[in-house]
Parts: sequence; C-alpha cells; structure tokens
Amino acid sequence: MDPHKLKNLLEDIRDGRITPDAGMTLLKDLSYLDLGCAKLDTHRELRVGYPEVVYCPGKSTEQVKTIIRAMAERDANILATRADEALFMEIRQICPDAVYHPLAKAVTVRKRTMEIPDSYIAVVTAGTSDMPVAEEAAVTAELFGNRVERIVDVGVAGVHRLFDKLDVIRGARVIIVVAGMEGALPSLVGGLVDKPVIAVPTSVGYGASFQGLAALLSMLNSCAGGVCVVNIDNGFGAGYMAGMINKLR
Amino acid sequence: MDPHKLKNLLEDIRDGRITPDAGMTLLKDLSYLDLGCAKLDTHRELRVGYPEVVYCPGKSTEQVKTIIRAMAERDANILATRADEALFMEIRQICPDAVYHPLAKAVTVRKRTMEIPDSYIAVVTAGTSDMPVAEEAAVTAELFGNRVERIVDVGVAGVHRLFDKLDVIRGARVIIVVAGMEGALPSLVGGLVDKPVIAVPTSVGYGASFQGLAALLSMLNSCAGGVCVVNIDNGFGAGYMAGMINKLR
Amino acid sequence: MDPHKLKNLLEDIRDGRITPDAGMTLLKDLSYLDLGCAKLDTHRELRVGYPEVVYCPGKSTEQVKTIIRAMAERDANILATRADEALFMEIRQICPDAVYHPLAKAVTVRKRTMEIPDSYIAVVTAGTSDMPVAEEAAVTAELFGNRVERIVDVGVAGVHRLFDKLDVIRGARVIIVVAGMEGALPSLVGGLVDKPVIAVPTSVGYGASFQGLAALLSMLNSCAGGVCVVNIDNGFGAGYMAGMINKLR
Amino acid sequence: MDPHKLKNLLEDIRDGRITPDAGMTLLKDLSYLDLGCAKLDTHRELRVGYPEVVYCPGKSTEQVKTIIRAMAERDANILATRADEALFMEIRQICPDAVYHPLAKAVTVRKRTMEIPDSYIAVVTAGTSDMPVAEEAAVTAELFGNRVERIVDVGVAGVHRLFDKLDVIRGARVIIVVAGMEGALPSLVGGLVDKPVIAVPTSVGYGASFQGLAALLSMLNSCAGGVCVVNIDNGFGAGYMAGMINKLR
Amino acid sequence: MDPHKLKNLLEDIRDGRITPDAGMTLLKDLSYLDLGCAKLDTHRELRVGYPEVVYCPGKSTEQVKTIIRAMAERDANILATRADEALFMEIRQICPDAVYHPLAKAVTVRKRTMEIPDSYIAVVTAGTSDMPVAEEAAVTAELFGNRVERIVDVGVAGVHRLFDKLDVIRGARVIIVVAGMEGALPSLVGGLVDKPVIAVPTSVGYGASFQGLAALLSMLNSCAGGVCVVNIDNGFGAGYMAGMINKLR
Amino acid sequence: MDPHKLKNLLEDIRDGRITPDAGMTLLKDLSYLDLGCAKLDTHRELRVGYPEVVYCPGKSTEQVKTIIRAMAERDANILATRADEALFMEIRQICPDAVYHPLAKAVTVRKRTMEIPDSYIAVVTAGTSDMPVAEEAAVTAELFGNRVERIVDVGVAGVHRLFDKLDVIRGARVIIVVAGMEGALPSLVGGLVDKPVIAVPTSVGYGASFQGLAALLSMLNSCAGGVCVVNIDNGFGAGYMAGMINKLR
Amino acid sequence: MDPHKLKNLLEDIRDGRITPDAGMTLLKDLSYLDLGCAKLDTHRELRVGYPEVVYCPGKSTEQVKTIIRAMAERDANILATRADEALFMEIRQICPDAVYHPLAKAVTVRKRTMEIPDSYIAVVTAGTSDMPVAEEAAVTAELFGNRVERIVDVGVAGVHRLFDKLDVIRGARVIIVVAGMEGALPSLVGGLVDKPVIAVPTSVGYGASFQGLAALLSMLNSCAGGVCVVNIDNGFGAGYMAGMINKLR
Amino acid sequence: MDPHKLKNLLEDIRDGRITPDAGMTLLKDLSYLDLGCAKLDTHRELRVGYPEVVYCPGKSTEQVKTIIRAMAERDANILATRADEALFMEIRQICPDAVYHPLAKAVTVRKRTMEIPDSYIAVVTAGTSDMPVAEEAAVTAELFGNRVERIVDVGVAGVHRLFDKLDVIRGARVIIVVAGMEGALPSLVGGLVDKPVIAVPTSVGYGASFQGLAALLSMLNSCAGGVCVVNIDNGFGAGYMAGMINKLR
Repeated sequence: MDPHKLKNLLEDIRDGRITPDAGMTLLKDLSYLDLGCAKLDTHRELRVGYPEVVYCPGKSTEQVKTIIRAMAERDANILATRADEALFMEIRQICPDAVYHPLAKAVTVRKRTMEIPDSYIAVVTAGTSDMPVAEEAAVTAELFGNRVERIVDVGVAGVHRLFDKLDVIRGARVIIVVAGMEGALPSLVGGLVDKPVIAVPTSVGYGASFQGLAALLSMLNSCAGGVCVVNIDNGFGAGYMAGMINKLR
Repeated sequence: MDPHKLKNLLEDIRDGRITPDAGMTLLKDLSYLDLGCAKLDTHRELRVGYPEVVYCPGKSTEQVKTIIRAMAERDANILATRADEALFMEIRQICPDAVYHPLAKAVTVRKRTMEIPDSYIAVVTAGTSDMPVAEEAAVTAELFGNRVERIVDVGVAGVHRLFDKLDVIRGARVIIVVAGMEGALPSLVGGLVDKPVIAVPTSVGYGASFQGLAALLSMLNSCAGGVCVVNIDNGFGAGYMAGMINKLR
Repeated sequence: MDPHKLKNLLEDIRDGRITPDAGMTLLKDLSYLDLGCAKLDTHRELRVGYPEVVYCPGKSTEQVKTIIRAMAERDANILATRADEALFMEIRQICPDAVYHPLAKAVTVRKRTMEIPDSYIAVVTAGTSDMPVAEEAAVTAELFGNRVERIVDVGVAGVHRLFDKLDVIRGARVIIVVAGMEGALPSLVGGLVDKPVIAVPTSVGYGASFQGLAALLSMLNSCAGGVCVVNIDNGFGAGYMAGMINKLR
Repeated sequence: MDPHKLKNLLEDIRDGRITPDAGMTLLKDLSYLDLGCAKLDTHRELRVGYPEVVYCPGKSTEQVKTIIRAMAERDANILATRADEALFMEIRQICPDAVYHPLAKAVTVRKRTMEIPDSYIAVVTAGTSDMPVAEEAAVTAELFGNRVERIVDVGVAGVHRLFDKLDVIRGARVIIVVAGMEGALPSLVGGLVDKPVIAVPTSVGYGASFQGLAALLSMLNSCAGGVCVVNIDNGFGAGYMAGMINKLR
Repeated sequence: MDPHKLKNLLEDIRDGRITPDAGMTLLKDLSYLDLGCAKLDTHRELRVGYPEVVYCPGKSTEQVKTIIRAMAERDANILATRADEALFMEIRQICPDAVYHPLAKAVTVRKRTMEIPDSYIAVVTAGTSDMPVAEEAAVTAELFGNRVERIVDVGVAGVHRLFDKLDVIRGARVIIVVAGMEGALPSLVGGLVDKPVIAVPTSVGYGASFQGLAALLSMLNSCAGGVCVVNIDNGFGAGYMAGMINKLR
Repeated sequence: MDPHKLKNLLEDIRDGRITPDAGMTLLKDLSYLDLGCAKLDTHRELRVGYPEVVYCPGKSTEQVKTIIRAMAERDANILATRADEALFMEIRQICPDAVYHPLAKAVTVRKRTMEIPDSYIAVVTAGTSDMPVAEEAAVTAELFGNRVERIVDVGVAGVHRLFDKLDVIRGARVIIVVAGMEGALPSLVGGLVDKPVIAVPTSVGYGASFQGLAALLSMLNSCAGGVCVVNIDNGFGAGYMAGMINKLR
Repeated sequence: MDPHKLKNLLEDIRDGRITPDAGMTLLKDLSYLDLGCAKLDTHRELRVGYPEVVYCPGKSTEQVKTIIRAMAERDANILATRADEALFMEIRQICPDAVYHPLAKAVTVRKRTMEIPDSYIAVVTAGTSDMPVAEEAAVTAELFGNRVERIVDVGVAGVHRLFDKLDVIRGARVIIVVAGMEGALPSLVGGLVDKPVIAVPTSVGYGASFQGLAALLSMLNSCAGGVCVVNIDNGFGAGYMAGMINKLR
Repeated sequence: MDPHKLKNLLEDIRDGRITPDAGMTLLKDLSYLDLGCAKLDTHRELRVGYPEVVYCPGKSTEQVKTIIRAMAERDANILATRADEALFMEIRQICPDAVYHPLAKAVTVRKRTMEIPDSYIAVVTAGTSDMPVAEEAAVTAELFGNRVERIVDVGVAGVHRLFDKLDVIRGARVIIVVAGMEGALPSLVGGLVDKPVIAVPTSVGYGASFQGLAALLSMLNSCAGGVCVVNIDNGFGAGYMAGMINKLR
C-alpha cells in the first residue's frame, strides 16, 4: 500500500472511524498477500520505496503467473527478470500491457508514472558480449524512474575509445560498469571520475575466467576508490542500487 | 592542486602572465610528483575530489615517510591505513599533528577544513570482533568530511538488538554494514531500509569462513536489493564509497 | 526384519525349536539380500529404525525396479528420491500403490502404519525457488511418521513475513530451514527459537552462489547456536535427521 | 532475565503496581545491556534457554573482561571459548570462581545449578589430535546441563576399537563425532546407530586436508542418514546443539 | 614390437644379415608409427609391457578408427575407453572381433593370449551408482591378464555387508576400492587388510561432493596406511596399476 | 588506417590542404567506427600492428556480421575465432572469400599480403585431443604472417617421440606447447631448448583436471626457465604472442 | 601380538589350558591397549603386518611419550614422524636406542630384525628442496624392512640427468617419485618404466603452487599408466605403500 | 662447458688426440657435476644459453654454499634468488665478489662479461609495494646481459601517470608488467603497445586477492593480445623470459 493510504487508515483509527482491532487486521492483511507459493510483499513499497520484482528462474510458469496476476490487480509497476520469450507470452495473456526486452530478458509493466530526476546513470560496457547484463541494469534503472546513458564496447584493450566518451561518463551522478574477462574497466573508470562506481562482473570469458570469478575478484580488489561490486551477471542489482543512489535528495 | 589554483594558472596563461610552454611545465609538474619509489598524485584531488591515501603494508618505513613528507609539504589532508603504532611514531616525527586511531590502525592528518553535509552515514557492526574494520570505515568517512553514527554488535543472532536501533539506521543517507562469519546482516538491513547499503565482509570467523570468503559470498548473493560489496576487511573502501554517496548533491 | 520377528527367532533357538546353525543361516540370510547390483539391507530397520531408501540417480531403471521389487515383497515402506515422472511410471507397474510427489520428485509406498508423535517438524523455506528441496524434506519426514508444518517464502529480505509466522515455528520440536542465495535464514531463525535447527543450503542463486556454495558456507558459519547443516539440496537428509530428533523419547 | 522474573513483572503491570510505561522501560532495559563494545543479550536466556557465551578471538582483553564482569553481576553461568591461559588469569581476577579447561581452552563459571537429564551425550573422537575440539564440545555440553561420555581414538583405520565401544555409543541420546583427516568416522557411526549424529570436522591433517576442508566435505556427503555437520573445529557448536537435543522433552 | 622380435633383429645385425644402418631404420620405424593425428607407440609394449590404449573423448570417430586400424594390423590387444555404443559400431566394422562392455563403456580386442597369474585383484564398490567406474577397472585388469573378483555395494553406511565379504577381499593380492560421496570406504578397507589398496574416487554424489572432489580429498587424507589414489572416475588407471602390481614376480 | 595513409593526412595538414579542424574530425572518425553494438578499432593496426579480431561467443549472428561487414569494407585481414560451421555460412554470404578451418573453428579472410620472416614458430601438441587448440594457435600465427611447423602427439608418457622431433623444435624462433591433463610438456620442452616457450593449457582431461586447471597450475609452476602461460584453451592468444615475438627485428 | 603367540593362545584354549572366558579377556586386552589419550593398536601387527606408527603433530609431548613408552614395553619397532629435535630428546629419555633422522624429521626404534627382500625401492627426487619428504619415504621403507636406492635432483628441467640414472630406476621393483612445483616427474618416469610408480606431491614452490595443489593435480592427471598418488608431503604414506608392494610374494 | 670447449673436445676425438672412450667419460662428467644433494647442470649453458640459478628456499645454508662453491670454481655467472641478508653473508665468505640486491633479495656474481644488445626491456610496476618482485625481474634480466628501464607506480587508478611514461615503454623490445591487487595494468599496457608483454601477478593485496590469485586470473583473462603470464611473484621467471626474447636475433 502506498504511504498516503496508510496515513488515511491511521487517521481513521485515531478518529474512531475504524476500531484498533479492525485496523490491526487491515494492516496485517495489507502488509503481504499470501499466494500459497509466495508471500507478495505489498508493504514493501512503503518500506523500501519500490514495487516488487519477480526473479523467474526456479519458479514454474504457473507460480510466475500467480504472482504477477496478484501484482497487476494492485496496479503495481512490475519487473520480471531472467524471463525467456515463451514465459513472456504466458505473462502477456494475463497482463496485456507487458513489454519484453529481449536483450535484457526482462518483462516490464508500467501502471504508474514516476517522478524522474534530472541527473542520469551511465551504464558502461566493456565488450559486446557483456551487453545483456548491461541492458538488464539499464532496464531496471529506467523502470524505477531514472534516465540512463549507455556507453558500449569501451574495454581496456583500446583505451582511446573510453577517453572519447569520458565526458558523458563524468556527467553522470552514478556509474555502472559491466565487464567480463579480466574485469579491469571499473578500476580504470574509478580512477578517472569522482562519482560512485558500481561494478558488475559478467560470466563472459573462457578457461580461467571460471564463469566470472576472475572478473569478480579483479573488481573486489580494485585499487581505485569509490568502486563497489554486485554479484556476477547481476545487472538487476546494479540497476536497483544505482537508481537508489541517483534518487537520493 | 586544488581547482581554485588551477583556474588561476589557466587565467594567467590566457592573460599572458605565463607562457603556454611554462604553463605546460607547471601543469605537468603539478599533476604528479615523482618520489622515486612512488608517484604522488597531486592532480588527484582535482580529478576525484579527495586527498591521497597511503596504504602502508608492503612499503618500507622510509618509503611511507617519503610519501607523507611530500604530502604534508603541500598541506594535504592525509590518511595512512593499516599502520601499527611503531609506524605512527615515525610519522609523528615528520608530521607532529598526526593523530593515531588504534582500533582502526589509521593515521590521520587534518590540514584543511572541509564542508560537512547535514546527512550522516550509519556504520553498523555485527559483532565486537568486527569493530576494527568498522572503525577504519568510520575514520575514513569522517576524514573526508562526513558525520558518522556507529551502531555496534547487532548481529542476526539477536535480532531484537537491531530493531532497537532501526530509527538511527533508517535516518542515515547511506549505510555501511560490517560483518564476518556468515555475513547475513547486510541482507537483513537491506530488507528494512530504502537507502544504499555498502556491505563489508570481515575475516572474523574460523574453519569454513576461510578468512572471510563465507561472508563475502553471502553478501554478494544478498536477496535484498540495494546492497553492494567491497573487499574483505576493506573498511577504507566502504568509508570512501559511502562518503562519496553522502556528498552527492 | 522387524524386532518382534527377531525376538521370536532367538526364542525359538533358546527353546530348541531351531538349531543354532539353522538360526545362523536364517539371520545372515535376513540381514541383507544380495540382488547382484545391490545389497538390500534388510537388517537396517532393526539397526537404525527405518525402512530402506532408494537414491535413484546413477542407477538404471532396471536396477531401481529390482531393488524396489525386493523391498515390496517384504512389505517395507519405501522412499525413492530424485525420481522423475517417467521412472515413477515404471515403478508403479511393479508397485501399484506407489504415490508420486512431483515437487519433491519423490516416490513413496506405504505398506505399514507408524505411530506418529504429537510434536511436529516445521519446514521453513526462504523463497519459492527453494520449495522442491523443502518438499523433499517434508515428504521424507512424513513417510517416517512425523507431522510437518510448512512455512513458505519468509526470506530475510522481508523479515516481517517471518515474524508473522514465528508462533508456528516456535511451536515445533525441531525446525528445518531451507535457503539458497546468501543462506542467511537459518541464522536468523536460530537466534529466535530454542529448538534444534537443521539448515539445508540449496543451489538456488546465480553467479557467485557457485551452485549453493555461498549458502553452505554461510550456514556453516552461523553465529547463532543450535544450527547444524546437511549437504546442498539434501532435503532427504534434513527430513531424516529431523524425524529422528522428533521421535526421540 | 529468567521467565519467573518476567512473569512477576507482567503481573505487576496487570495489577497496577507498575505503570505500562515503566514496565516498557524495564523490559527494554533488561532485554540487553549496552556495554559500548557489545550488547549483552540478557533476554537471550528467555528466548533460547541458555546463558550468553563469549567467543574470545578478535576481542581485546579489556573487552572480554567488560563483558564477563557484566555477566557475572547478573549471576549468569558463563562460557568463554578459545581463551588461552593468560586470558584466563585476567578473567579470574574479576571472577574468582572461574575454572580453566586447558585441553578445551575454555573458561567456565557456574553460578546456578541446572537440572540434568538421565540421558547422556556420547562424544566420539577419531584420533588423539582431535581431542581439543572434542573437549570443547564436552565442556560446553556439560556446562549447559548434560551428562557426557567420552570415547577416544576410535578412527576408521582400526575399526575393531570402535566396535568395542559400540554399546556406550548406542546408549547415548545424541552422538557427537569429531574427526580430522578424511573425516570418515561419522558415516561409519551413522550407519551403526539410530540416534542423531552431529559431525565435527577438525583441521587436523596436512597437505590436501586443506585445514579441515577434506573432512568437512566428507561429512557433508555422508551416505549414512541422520548425520549433520557444524563448522570446522566448532566443538562449541556441536556441544550446544547436542545439549539442545538431549534436553528435548 | 615384442621382445622376441627385437632380439631376432639384434642377432641379425650381429651376424651380418642386416647392416647396422638398415637395423637403425627398422628400429626407429618400429618404435612409433606416425598416423598424422597420432603417433602410435609400437615400442611401448617393450618398454612398459602392455599394448596401447585409446582414450576416446576429444578424438573424432575417424581419428579413433585410424588408430585402431593401425593397432589391429599389428595384432595388438586393444582397449578403447569411454566409448559409447555408436562408436563401438564403427569400430566393429574395421575390427569384427571387438567386444563391447556397456557398463564400463569399453571396447576390447583380444588378439593374443596372455599368461594369467594365480593371484587375483579384488574390485570393491561402495554403491550401485559407482559400478560403471568399477567395471572399467575390472575390464582393464582382465584385458591385461589378471583374474578379478567383484564385490558390490558394501559402503560404510552398512558396514556388516563389508565384513561379510572380508575373506574374499583379504584373499586378493591387491585391492581396488571405488567410492563416491564421502569416499570413506578405502580408509576402512585399508585398516582391515595388509595389501595395497588403490582408491578410485567417483563423481557420484550431489551438492558439496563437487563432482568427486569430496571423495578425492577424503581418500588422499586416508588415515589408514597402504592407500594410494588415482584420478576421479579413473577406473582404467586403477585397473592398470593393480594389474602391474599383481603381475610383479 | 595504415601508417602510410596517416602520414599523408598529417602532411596534408602541414601543407594547408586540410584544416586542422577537418583533420581532427577525420582522425577521430578513423580511429574507431561506432557500429552501435561495437566500436571497430580502426586505429588499432597502427597502434599494435595487426588487424582486428572477432571473438564470436556471446555475440549474436547479426552482431558478428555487422562487425565483419565493416571490416571487409576497409580491406582488413580478418580472423573470427570460436565460430561454428553455421556461423561461417552466414559470414560467407557477406564475405565470399572467407575460409573455414574446421579443426580450429576459425574463419579467416585474407585481403592483403604480409611480409613473412624466414624464422618459424613450432606448435607442439601433447595429445590428439589437444589438436583443436593447437590449430587455433597455428591458424592465428599464419594469418598474422608467420611460418608454422606442427608437431603432434609427443606427450611426456612416450618421451622418445619428443626426442625424435627435437631438431625441428630447436630450429624454431619461438615455441608454442599445447597440453591438457597434467600439462607437463612445456616444462620438458623448456628444459631442452633455449627459445621462448608459450604454454597453452587445454581443458582436455577429466575428474581432477577441473577443466584445465591442473594443466594451468602445472605450467605456471614450471621449473624450467623461459616458459610463460596464456589462458586455458586460448590458442589465439598463444598464436598472437608467438607471432609478435617471431616478427621482432 | 605376533601370529605365533596368537596361535599358542588358541591352542591353549583348545586343549583346555585356558578357559574360553579367560582367553576372551586376554585376546581383547591384547587387541589394543587403552592409554587414555590413545588406543594402542597391538593387534594391528597381526592384521596389517607392521608395527604402529606415531604421527606427532597435534599431540602433546606427554601424549607422545605415553604412547611410545607403551610400544617400547612390548618390544615393537617404532616410527615417530614429524618430530623435531626437541621432541626426539624427550623420546630418547624413555627409549635410549631411539635414532633421529634430521632431514626426514623421523625417530626410529629397531627392536626386532626383519627379513629383507632382494628387490629394492627407488626413491626419485625432482629437486633438492624435495629431499625432506623423500627422506621420510626412504626411512619409512627401510624401517619396514626394504632396501632403498635414492636418486636426487633429476627434475624435468634437465632431463639428461634423469636418463643418466634410468638403469637404477628401472631395476627397482617399485618406484617413489617426489616432486613439487609442477609435479611433472612422475608422468615422465611412468612413461619410461614398467613398474608401479607412487607419486608424492610436495608443498615446494610458491605463488600458484598453492602449497602443493599444483603438483597434486598434475600427478592425479598423469597421462602415463601405472601412477598413483598419496597426500601432499606424505613421504610416510609413500614409503609404507611401496614397502607393502615390494614385499608381496 | 661452453660451446667452444665442446668443439675442441670433439675435434680432439676426430683427430685421435683423445680416444672415443675417454671422450665419452669427459663428456658425461662435464654434463653435470654430482654434489650429493644436487646435480649441477654444467651442460646447461650449452643447451639453454645461460648459467645456472640457485633458488634458495627449502635448501639448507650448507646446501646453498655447496652448490655456489662448485659454480664459482667453474667461473660461472651466478644468480641466487630469495636469499635473505644472513644467507648472503654466508655466500660472501666463499665468493667474495658476490653482490646483494636487498629489494630483490637476490645475490649475483659476475665472472664473465656478456654481450649486451642495444634494445632494452621495460619493467613497469603498478604500485610501490610491487617493487620487490619487479626488482627481481630487473636484476635477473641485467645479469643475463640486458639493459633495463624501470617505470614505477603507474597503476590504473591514476592512468595519466602511465601515459606520461608511454614513450619509454613503447621504445622497449619487450615489456614486463608487475601488478598485484586487481592486476589490470598488463591489459592496459597490452592495448597500448605492439610488443610482447610478460605479466607478473604479485601477492600484494588483502582479503579477496587471495595471495595473488585475483591478479593472476585477471592477467590470464586479459582482453588485450600479446600478454602472457608467469607465476605469482615470479620476477625471476619474467626477467629470464624477457631476456631470452630481447636477445633473439
């Protein structure tokens, strides 16, 4: 429930229009909705400021649809991550205004408009193969009400490409850097800007990249200040974090 | 050099008081100072907004003193991390206003005053043994011009202690959470607040903690949004990142 | 063989109705049944109190059927784990009263009734994607004669959902907690109850979860007392252990 | 505070002898005691049934003494683990009835008598070098009000030694098995008894034992049912868990 | 070439029937046969006493056939390991007397008879799922001229099954023990016999078995003497080694 | 752009045929070509002396074709690695003179002739299964203008095969050694030659080879001097490095 | 007890000189001797053919002396491994004929003479730094009644040194190969001989040797047949295993 | 022995001044010198072109002195690595012209002059703490007859320091790049030059650097071409390799 509705409810209690016991029930009922296979966290918007997100892997199609149907009934904005096209087709049946982002493998539903700040988030990508993870970050940040600038294919092996884009990177309020293989780009960017850098290692690479471990360790050991790290391939987490920072007032 | 001095220099060039060639030399000379064993990055303040930091391990006492002497001559604020008391005694000989923070094992020198924003950073610590790392984060953030609130010993094994401090945590603009062993506290905090959480795994624990690996992996896999991670025991990195976010305007 | 039959046999020997040599043969023959590809441990029920279990992966369909046919002929209760639906169809041909549990991927056959204690086991699940493992634990515990209460989707990212179910968790005699990703839930539950907690890490997660390693390490390093751990995704082991504790008198 | 005192307090509120506001303050104040460096969890005894424990590594001598002094003032039973003899000497100055267990490296203080059940815990040790961890488990279990039987040096390389002690092992209500190197003993014991087995891997071994990793993995993969695992060298955790199970009624 | 032929050649040189230069050519030509994609080591039989073996994975069908055709032309006994049934069908076209061992996934061709010693090798298997690896060991040992006794499903969880077979195990000259999961069986057997034990870890297990790593580490850390280890799932290596020991005179 | 064209451009600026501003635009435009999904590094040939390479995994077919079409329009020599036959068919549609190397899974396009030095590179392969990686190295080196000698199947288990080829190995200017399993061959070769050895671990092997980790660690720890290592299965990197060394004058 | 004494005891029972009950007591008493901190396995000599061994690390000096005193009283041959010189001085006080082997860090006591076979064991060492482990193997094998030939410093980086010693290596009945760093020597030896090779990885090396892991993995993946592996630095295990094979008749 | 002496010897044989049998003995005797604890590889200079090196760790002082004394008697140039000052004092007693390099912890003895090519090797260091490893590389390369240019403290966090030194780096014939922490510098340098880059990871860093593993993996996964890697902290290996490449004609 949104804060406005909550305040109304509490005033109703204060003014005697609703008994405390009835208010108790309403509040508790509203705080989450038990769907059997999941507890939909309707209170969450109040507590952490954003709509709920569905992480699709490991859930059956029926479970995903049950959760999204409940969300849609409450007019929430919705983000479903790691969804393939077949799953999107199922979702669209119950939620016709759902949109599919094929590169990011994300489904979004926009039910409400959000205030969008002037500052923007830069999403910087080392190589073409890292683009799906970067796009998950960008789609997430945009759905949560942020402007995003995308800078593609500026990895350390051709550093002049990065310098050519330095202005747009330095103009951002927070920067997401996505890289696989040796994961060196966040350190380089971190040394060139004075803004928070969120580093996303990807599983791009082979052999001793060990599915992104090399990039992860590289980023955790960055010698540049102002760099923090999220999980391997976790574009969603980076977009969420960046959006949270971008909206700090 | 600080931005003000740089602007003066450029105006001197424009107005003919300094030839471009002389300005070139001055600029380059100023951008770093070659100390033989290190290149002191005097330009860095301009580029990333903060004074230089000395990470002491692996450097000889003479090297540390050479670097700090050069910094002090330029009236920089100085932070030396991972310094034991004996090293501090050496530093104090060349820099009498140096201060030692024994829990954080940090040396600070304040030469200039900084503007301090109203918002504050919360540094939340899971257990007593995690306090040295938390204190390194707090000292770092304070030296870079931030207010810090410390919340100690609120690990997940006694969750009522955390809830008792939730107001001061929620009031912060950005939150640092320091935890060893299973590293679960950042996930819990991340689910209770709508502010960026910077998670710092510590090497506290034994056996299968593998010197902080368990806490690190736990934090990277946080199911709560808005959590990012720095290196094991890297209090400095967390304090630097949090300060950067806290000062975003 | 069940203890009652064994006692009869020994009394027959004592009273001369069976010679010691014949008794020797009977006993040895009964202690296990050699099926060529497996030794069916018929003595096991006496020694550890429970019927035999078939772990299906790595066994051919013919091997599984040979083993189950031999069990069924002796009227044992049977549990076959990690069985897909096709294997169940084969089993049902030789064992028509077999039941399939699709979420748990388990086949059960109930030939005998067991005494069921009043106390119950709580099976607590962090996320929807962890449900298959939790269900394997629950089905196992139920087949071995225990009551089970299931609590679903109460992970640490929304801790109010857990508190809402705390009464039913605290009422249990032993608690199974199933979690993937950062695996923090057992520590939180362990700090809130005074009952044994059996933690089950799952392979749910991605990137640096390393197929459940992050959750496993997190649980092994739990800062809460009264938490022990079984193998990744080992719902069966947790259900077996919990049942054993629940039936202690 | 113990349950009896809590009930008195609540009755005082009900009967008007204490105002709700004053009761609120008393309750909160009692639930933990803020020592600056630690929050002493005085409520814990009520919630999980046992007194507080001090894990000494990573804490300064002053911090340990501050915590123990506060505990002693409330007449709690106290267990300090991983304490060397020098630390014990310091503790004895503020707590003259403290007792040192040199093999277990534990300090205990008994202020209250506890009810001790008839059933006992068996602590089974694979080799002589594993005895310190086993003794930490035994001392813990005894302080929490349990009888303990110790069985030493019965590792799998000489299995007849184990069989000779099988009666006392089978007579226990719960069994702790401590082993380093290949960690095979819990599997063997688990196949021979019908009681819960808590396996404790130790860091005893060399080369590819990797400080207990070999034993840990071995125990997690036990093919015997009814075996669960605690952290490497975590005798305390095993003793706590076993005591909890032994006292279930 | 076999030693007899070599001796004839050398005598031909001594007696002048072949010039040293011609002998040089013959010898070198015989020592390996260059097939383009492989160098067939025809000299090997002389040096290490056994025919060549083809490890099939990573080789194309054409490469496997080229190698086997060359071997068959020289009347060598042949062992092709890790071959599926389709590959066997291809091999049989060029080598009609090839035999397929489906459980071991091995192809054998017997062109020559070998002397078989009286002593035998025991191949002991912990569980039914370990049988393919054990069978690769047994087929290898038999092809290299050894008698083999197979003992199946005697893992440590039901140790009475092992004791029942102890006589046949103790009667062997060398013992192969194959086990997955916790890999405890070789330690147990090693403590009960006074013969060399070759331990073979298998990738059977799940979760924290990490594809056989748990069993491998367990076996390397065996507290019993007289146990050595080969690679995970390396039945061939164990059979080869055991045969070599069995034939020592 | 090639160095000759660059020099012409700079002379045009010097001589006033092109204004500095126009030259600036041309230069920048030429230094990379922005394709949306990738930045084609046209300046690279000048900086590092070689044409661009396309690493195909993780790129869509459309992305690969976009990149290759842009390269082909500039008459660059092209190397596409890790391309399957289907992808080659697509490439050939836009680039009819493309050639497929099935063993190396590489596509090459030769538009320009290069000067080829007299000295050659030896590519030494331990086993038949390592040939695809070795072939990627050889094809790479040849496309970059080097002569290559291939020596196949000379692994350490039959060391006489290696000695037989020692002359051709010693005659090379630089040696690539490709090996999986225990990865011992580079150490052996490094001890027998006085030329730089580039070691390539392959993922050939099973069990405890851990997808090439065993060979990688073995090569990094080589006790022979003059051995350096590239990533697992990275034939391209070895061929590139060897070519660079071979062409040093 | 030795087999001869056992037979006498059983004949005494058969002939009535000792009652079965008394014999039972004697047998059990003899099978191990309970020393409180250890169970001395006096029966072991009968079962596995060799005297008991004391692995010293993790045992207190008093515990080691208690164990050795009990062994010495029974006139057993004794081997104490990983003993420093100070411990040896303590042992010599209770066992004056103890001998110290400083390189192997082993203490030996010879009370009985053993039959020594004509065949010998070759202990082959890659580098000078590997000699302590090799010497532990050699001392062990000699104490258990074997002749040993030592070949030192013949690592793969200078393979002509190995070939120069090939005759003495090929003349052995079983070969121990000790190597650190890349651990390639056992593969090379295994390809040159037709005898069992026992490979011992050592922790010699630095960086990515990871305390012997590189050598261990290398040896487990040996492409040569007839190679098996013991734990890192486990000279004792190799000497024990080799002696067992050398004495097979 | 040097090639000139060898040629003389062979001519003596051809011309009858030395019998073949005597020549055989001389040759073999010269090829290595057996010192008991080591085989001094006197033939090595001929085979790989450089004098012998002593790696000191794991060797006793006596062993090191024995080896160096034998080398010095033959007027070889000598390099002893990882030697502390105390060991140097011992070496100087037998070799008065030995020189100690304290930062590199290396001892060098120059007995012969070598031809030094015009081209030079650049040794580039990321941070001050990496200097000991870099210095070991530089000292090694210089002793083997190369000119070296040192560039210090140009890590990626302040990339303008690197660009300022690019001319001297690009002027080298081969480049060694030494870096700890995230190990990104070799990728950056590799993208800016067209010369071979030898990357040396160092163990500088903390937490998740895992003693250099992070830097090692980062370098192995470099997205820049022309980068190869040696072991962690292996300055010697890099200097040796670079010298070999620098001297290729």
